[in-house]
Amino acid sequence: MARTVFITGGARSGKSTFAQQQAEACPGPLLYLAAARVEDAEMAARIQAHRAVRGARWQTLEEPLEIVRALSGACGYGAVLFDCVTLWLSNLLFHHQEDQTLILNAVDQLAATLTQLEIPVFIVSNEVGSGIVPENRLARLFRDLAGTANQRLAAVADEAWLVAAGCPLRLK
Amino acid sequence: MARTVFITGGARSGKSTFAQQQAEACPGPLLYLAAARVEDAEMAARIQAHRAVRGARWQTLEEPLEIVRALSGACGYGAVLFDCVTLWLSNLLFHHQEDQTLILNAVDQLAATLTQLEIPVFIVSNEVGSGIVPENRLARLFRDLAGTANQRLAAVADEAWLVAAGCPLRLK
Amino acid sequence: MARTVFITGGARSGKSTFAQQQAEACPGPLLYLAAARVEDAEMAARIQAHRAVRGARWQTLEEPLEIVRALSGACGYGAVLFDCVTLWLSNLLFHHQEDQTLILNAVDQLAATLTQLEIPVFIVSNEVGSGIVPENRLARLFRDLAGTANQRLAAVADEAWLVAAGCPLRLK
Repeated sequence: MARTVFITGGARSGKSTFAQQQAEACPGPLLYLAAARVEDAEMAARIQAHRAVRGARWQTLEEPLEIVRALSGACGYGAVLFDCVTLWLSNLLFHHQEDQTLILNAVDQLAATLTQLEIPVFIVSNEVGSGIVPENRLARLFRDLAGTANQRLAAVADEAWLVAAGCPLRLK
Repeated sequence: MARTVFITGGARSGKSTFAQQQAEACPGPLLYLAAARVEDAEMAARIQAHRAVRGARWQTLEEPLEIVRALSGACGYGAVLFDCVTLWLSNLLFHHQEDQTLILNAVDQLAATLTQLEIPVFIVSNEVGSGIVPENRLARLFRDLAGTANQRLAAVADEAWLVAAGCPLRLK
Repeated sequence: MARTVFITGGARSGKSTFAQQQAEACPGPLLYLAAARVEDAEMAARIQAHRAVRGARWQTLEEPLEIVRALSGACGYGAVLFDCVTLWLSNLLFHHQEDQTLILNAVDQLAATLTQLEIPVFIVSNEVGSGIVPENRLARLFRDLAGTANQRLAAVADEAWLVAAGCPLRLK
């Protein structure tokens, strides 16, 4: 059954663990869709370690940019976990050379795709807008994009959660 | 009927949109009280664009410092939206040359005024204290002032809300 | 009766005030366990001022590192307030020369101690992970440690709260 769950929180708030537990409550094989780019041996080792932690029910797909295509092609899984929106946005920011319109178009395509999937999807994102205004222009642009993306994705989700200190708070 | 609603959240969390929707549920003409300073043509254009988005029920008043006077003189409106406390605090910080006592006095005057108004007021502020401690002294002072102001204003409000990813969480 | 209450929030969110009010609802003498280091006359004066604010029911103990020992030896009190985890972590970070394993071992010892105490303990911490990713490597390490510590301490607590704008939100 289709179900979109949006999960946000600060760094090391426990949001990915909560998302993983929720996904593991679904029957069948599970897809971990990572926005990470495998760029060097250190990253490859970390991804390998994360895979081992998740265990045998999970398959992992690294996809830095084409998240919509990866989700649309995710057939036969009991659930998908996409981790995370903010890393994907930082990849898009680089790829689209800071063009906000192109980046938010990609977010809107993801939002539209989420409403059409036929399996549960768990979307993890980060809260990055509750600190002091960054002095760095690119950091300000990034936090505006992340806040806007979080709003648009939570808007189409069936459930939204804020995780703090490992505890999930239901937002919607 | 008097009613004070305090609304906080991170950057691009959807707090202003939530405040606007709440205000629009009140009958009568609406006042948008902006802490912004109209300093140049770019700012004037942005303010004009924001006015157009809010639509015909809204009047806009830009007031960088004298928020208490502006609120006290807001007669004949069905509701007032003040957006936002943190921008006002940064104007006060500059105007009072970082004198914390004068700035917090102004916050206390605003809090006292809120309890005496006879129309609904929606107060928007920002969460700026949930990141790492800033290295910049002025940024640390600002986040302390913003946190203190948020506490004092929420304390006199009838309702307080935290908005995350576009979803309002009731604080009080 | 044993009871562990974990309280987190941003800077100047009202978390310490909430913790103090909760502790003062317990009968008997109260211990304020401060992670602060008394390093100079200015710090001594600030600590003295804080003591005066807390009033006669409170005794204060400054302990920069040995929090587990201080808690284990806290006999005869009606409740203990430990303020705060993040200051203690920054002391540990310096003391253990950034060795994450030693620091997280200390956190785990604190968590284990909390489950064995026979009086109520109120633990205050800070949210530091909801801003933009810090450029400074040590700041990134610190926010990862703080997030992990918050998760581990909230996990063993009987109650967890997030305070925003002076308003407590129950996390668990």
